[in-house]
Amino acid sequence: MKRSLGAKTLAMPSPVWVIGTYDAAGTPNLMTVAWGGICCSKPPAVSISLREATYTYACVVGRRAFTVNVPSVSHAAAADLVGVVSGREGDKFAAAGLTAVPSELVDAPYVEEFPLNLECRLVDSLKLGLHTLFVGEIVDVKADEEVLGRDGYPTVDGVRPFTFVVAEQSYYALGDRIGPAFAAKRKSAAS
Amino acid sequence: MKRSLGAKTLAMPSPVWVIGTYDAAGTPNLMTVAWGGICCSKPPAVSISLREATYTYACVVGRRAFTVNVPSVSHAAAADLVGVVSGREGDKFAAAGLTAVPSELVDAPYVEEFPLNLECRLVDSLKLGLHTLFVGEIVDVKADEEVLGRDGYPTVDGVRPFTFVVAEQSYYALGDRIGPAFAAKRKSAAS
Repeated sequence: MKRSLGAKTLAMPSPVWVIGTYDAAGTPNLMTVAWGGICCSKPPAVSISLREATYTYACVVGRRAFTVNVPSVSHAAAADLVGVVSGREGDKFAAAGLTAVPSELVDAPYVEEFPLNLECRLVDSLKLGLHTLFVGEIVDVKADEEVLGRDGYPTVDGVRPFTFVVAEQSYYALGDRIGPAFAAKRKSAAS
Repeated sequence: MKRSLGAKTLAMPSPVWVIGTYDAAGTPNLMTVAWGGICCSKPPAVSISLREATYTYACVVGRRAFTVNVPSVSHAAAADLVGVVSGREGDKFAAAGLTAVPSELVDAPYVEEFPLNLECRLVDSLKLGLHTLFVGEIVDVKADEEVLGRDGYPTVDGVRPFTFVVAEQSYYALGDRIGPAFAAKRKSAAS
């Protein structure tokens, strides 16, 4: 039996990504977002949504760049912290014990301690309501060597990413691997 | 030590959502997407990205509506199947053994068997390249009563959602709960 829950953002899961930017003075800033996702394969692009009231909003608009930094489970407290305090209140890198590395490709810093970093150039935006959606073209991905698998790609065991579940207002780790994607295609091709 | 991996869609994790639509003839159609995310809180909205070549693209444009259906781990094979075959090749609801329920609110069907369903009205779109991003305002959420917690919201234990990890081309279940989000705020307020 289905129950109607009303018009709410109750999809699951959402990512936990920490956005790196510079403010007008060039000070590195951080903010955690859960409203976002990959949005295009060619060119590779990611979207994040920000409220206009956030400090990061002005940074993204001003510098036309941001980084998407994927924290490990071990960074959950740091990611949570930079999601609830504002960059107006002080240096969030310092507060969270994180290190800002200047990107050589876009006008934004990435997080040294987080295992996976996407360097993005702002290419589009869409005002939706409380949030504005920003599209960043991914110009490079940086990853810690120790999180890479044999194929040179980051692994779940290495990165240990986690998710935000809005319905429970909680963070969850990834768990068991279910299996390969597109298995139906392989099966179909084999038959 | 960071290694450069190039311009790739290597964020993690991505959701696994199955999009329900009607085609021009009114036949229910399904397609699995991983490029998407919640994109606005007020009005509540979700974005999904589709290639113009897909059957679902024309359905979304034609009907200006879609549903986002969140499969459980037990539906992984069905979700995988409807992600690799085209609606042009036949009835994907039938092929996957799923039931189309007509939404009474938007011009799209939702999946009876999946525990969580978002009914969306197309409100905006943005052509990005290979993919076009579609924004759907969430007009209602339906959920199976048995996946709801005491507070009336869907739980991870009930829904058992899973994720797509592009770097491994694999599906992963959610695992352990790390803790509550916004704990830093509570801590700060208490001190």
